[in-house]
Amino acid sequence: DLSILGKYESVLAKLGITSISEGSSLSCEEVGDGNLNFVWIVRGPQGSVVVKQAPPYIRLVGEGFPLTKKRASFEYNALSHQHSVCPDHVPQVYGFDEPSATILMEYLEPPFIILRKGLIHGLVYPFLASHIGIFVAHALFRTSPLHLSEKELRERAAAATNVELCRLTEAVIFTDPYVPNDKAAFPNKWTSPQLDGIAQSIKQDAELKTKIYALKLKFITSTEALIHGDLHTGSVMVTASSTKVIDPEFAFYGPIGFDIGAFIANLFLSFCAQPGLASSRTEPAALDVSKYQDWLLEQVIQMWETFSQEFLKLWETPELTTNSSFPASMFPIGSPERKLAQEAFMQKILHDSIGFAGAKMIRRLVGVAHVEDM
Amino acid sequence: DLSILGKYESVLAKLGITSISEGSSLSCEEVGDGNLNFVWIVRGPQGSVVVKQAPPYIRLVGEGFPLTKKRASFEYNALSHQHSVCPDHVPQVYGFDEPSATILMEYLEPPFIILRKGLIHGLVYPFLASHIGIFVAHALFRTSPLHLSEKELRERAAAATNVELCRLTEAVIFTDPYVPNDKAAFPNKWTSPQLDGIAQSIKQDAELKTKIYALKLKFITSTEALIHGDLHTGSVMVTASSTKVIDPEFAFYGPIGFDIGAFIANLFLSFCAQPGLASSRTEPAALDVSKYQDWLLEQVIQMWETFSQEFLKLWETPELTTNSSFPASMFPIGSPERKLAQEAFMQKILHDSIGFAGAKMIRRLVGVAHVEDM
Ligand SMILES: Nc1ncnc2c1ncn2[C@@H]1O[C@H](COP(=O)(O)OP(=O)(O)O)[C@@H](O)[C@H]1O
Ligand SMILES: Nc1ncnc2c1ncn2[C@@H]1O[C@H](COP(=O)(O)OP(=O)(O)O)[C@@H](O)[C@H]1O
Ligand SMILES: [Mg+2]
Ligand SMILES: [Mg+2]
Ligand SMILES: [Mg+2]
Ligand SMILES: [Mg+2]
Ligand SMILES: [Mg+2]
Repeated sequence: DLSILGKYESVLAKLGITSISEGSSLSCEEVGDGNLNFVWIVRGPQGSVVVKQAPPYIRLVGEGFPLTKKRASFEYNALSHQHSVCPDHVPQVYGFDEPSATILMEYLEPPFIILRKGLIHGLVYPFLASHIGIFVAHALFRTSPLHLSEKELRERAAAATNVELCRLTEAVIFTDPYVPNDKAAFPNKWTSPQLDGIAQSIKQDAELKTKIYALKLKFITSTEALIHGDLHTGSVMVTASSTKVIDPEFAFYGPIGFDIGAFIANLFLSFCAQPGLASSRTEPAALDVSKYQDWLLEQVIQMWETFSQEFLKLWETPELTTNSSFPASMFPIGSPERKLAQEAFMQKILHDSIGFAGAKMIRRLVGVAHVEDM
Repeated sequence: DLSILGKYESVLAKLGITSISEGSSLSCEEVGDGNLNFVWIVRGPQGSVVVKQAPPYIRLVGEGFPLTKKRASFEYNALSHQHSVCPDHVPQVYGFDEPSATILMEYLEPPFIILRKGLIHGLVYPFLASHIGIFVAHALFRTSPLHLSEKELRERAAAATNVELCRLTEAVIFTDPYVPNDKAAFPNKWTSPQLDGIAQSIKQDAELKTKIYALKLKFITSTEALIHGDLHTGSVMVTASSTKVIDPEFAFYGPIGFDIGAFIANLFLSFCAQPGLASSRTEPAALDVSKYQDWLLEQVIQMWETFSQEFLKLWETPELTTNSSFPASMFPIGSPERKLAQEAFMQKILHDSIGFAGAKMIRRLVGVAHVEDM
């Protein structure tokens, strides 16, 4: 039902029509590669828009697996915030229709493709890591207690309790890979019999499970910033020079390291997948696998460095810290204590990020949802 | 205005009257030693009740310092929860009148006194530490992700955002002692000139301030359990054999270590105060100061040991962990991973507790609110 598009001037303008009764001049194509929701490209005489709708169930599994369509509100709110603080790396949002759980947003037209596909093809994106570093720094800093007052942080965190989608993450990342398959909320899958031994040893590794539970507790009980919540390489669209982050329906106030960890985990997984992918690849024939792997590892470092530099730059911007829980009266600009506290903060985030990256990698290998590059 | 008492059968029964029109048989006495609220003892022919009212300002400072009277709802909710899971150590709650922000509760009659006064008089309470350990274990376990599901924890934490009272703690404990006095939200006080040097060096200690800010971030961004939030020795009433915790108006979902730290900080402060108190004390003449100090230190250890034993006992109670975020399928009863994860959890709580205890001690020495025993 495309009638809701008629309510948004900017959508009509984009499509190049004046009202929705001219529906005949529109065409509508479904995009098939998401897991949870319906996404359509609606084309008009002048341009196109993307329509994303959350059904009250998981699209890929069907009506038998109900899931709140409220996830679309969380996505809309997060997307709007992210676009407002980082317009270069987030599609523009045109509107939101709550009753139908539908978001209208900018169409990222070809040559934009999903990053995961680009990596599978061995393509190099020179700005990728720094763009993602900038995105995470801006989106998270602006919702962190370094920018917000304690009051604002508490109120916003309480308003963004995305309980059901967090519940999915809690199950598929922090629990299911570590329990016998008949106890998992979602059945684990892995390449059998090759990985049977590894899957079993993961389920029996006391130290690993202890660390994973500590990470799960961080996920459940930390409200450090409005995180994206699902920042894998399937939530990023790229061209040679541009990078856009989509699909923040898992957004909630959680640990900052979770987003960074998610992204670098996917780079590491791509690193591991490259030799296998190369052997089944016909073109570009000249791709040097080990060079491409080096590039992937460099992206991990580059992403962290851009993130931390940009985050600290925002932290040092006086207009952005007037209400901060980190007061200049206690940590004067230029003082050694300011530097020391910032270093301690960044070290903690790095430590958390590495932990979450590990958890993410394990779940992709032996958990419910595999991805194309494995 | 005592007419609200008439709405509660249990209050009338307690007082020994049948309706509030017999008001002539009631007497009302104000208790003067609280800081934020009004507390009255209302006596009837058969018995007494306590009436606690939160005015829309800080009682001790006056109408010039507004403070939400919603704090009474947070107190009522926390008190009700605490009484339900730990009836031996929390007064019974008879009722709550939201419009007037008034709580009706059990009168803890003499010989109950405020613990702080007992310690000032050098009195020994043989059960104190284990009672408080039990109170904290039950009150916090039952609101932690070890008992609650992830969903319940998130929903309860969001519903209990006690923003304004947290704001007071954030200012007086984690900020004011570390900033120049003219930048403090509440002017710091300390014994001058004796402590001038110490107060200054605290404000300039880069490492200390870095650790304090890390604790402040834990306070702002952790939702580990419904904590009491103000568990000093002025929030505990005692007799020789009984211990009751009152005044949880600061309650919110915060770090577990904050309550433990608050209590042990007050024991340490009492330890430090004893030689000074002894020199001004006339009776009991026979009190051995250093023995009493030993007893105080033993209480710190005893409190932690009782807390951790009791907390683990609850954690090992199958009926209390059916919805836990710590699933038996991942951590089977009796398995080494279960033990390891529990040890890691308790170590983290101990570490946090010691940190918060330090922050609490510093603020009592150089912050805005002093207490009688210093
Ligand atoms: N703004 C957009 N422009 C172009 N394509 C998009 C856009 N948003 C989504 N898509 C396409 O739709 C797919 C699914 O979208 P996504 O937001 O990831 O949905 P899901 O939540 O179901 O995973 C993406 O993988 C991408 O191919
Ligand atoms: N249930 C009670 N029974 C007896 N005395 C009480 C009770 N509750 C409070 N009091 C007395 O009133 C004083 C102030 O109560 P409290 O709850 O601590 O108020 P405030 O929030 O203002 O600090 C206590 O120090 C204690 O002396
Ligand atoms: Mg997606
Ligand atoms: Mg999605
Ligand atoms: Mg009190
Ligand atoms: Mg008080
Ligand atoms: Mg109080």
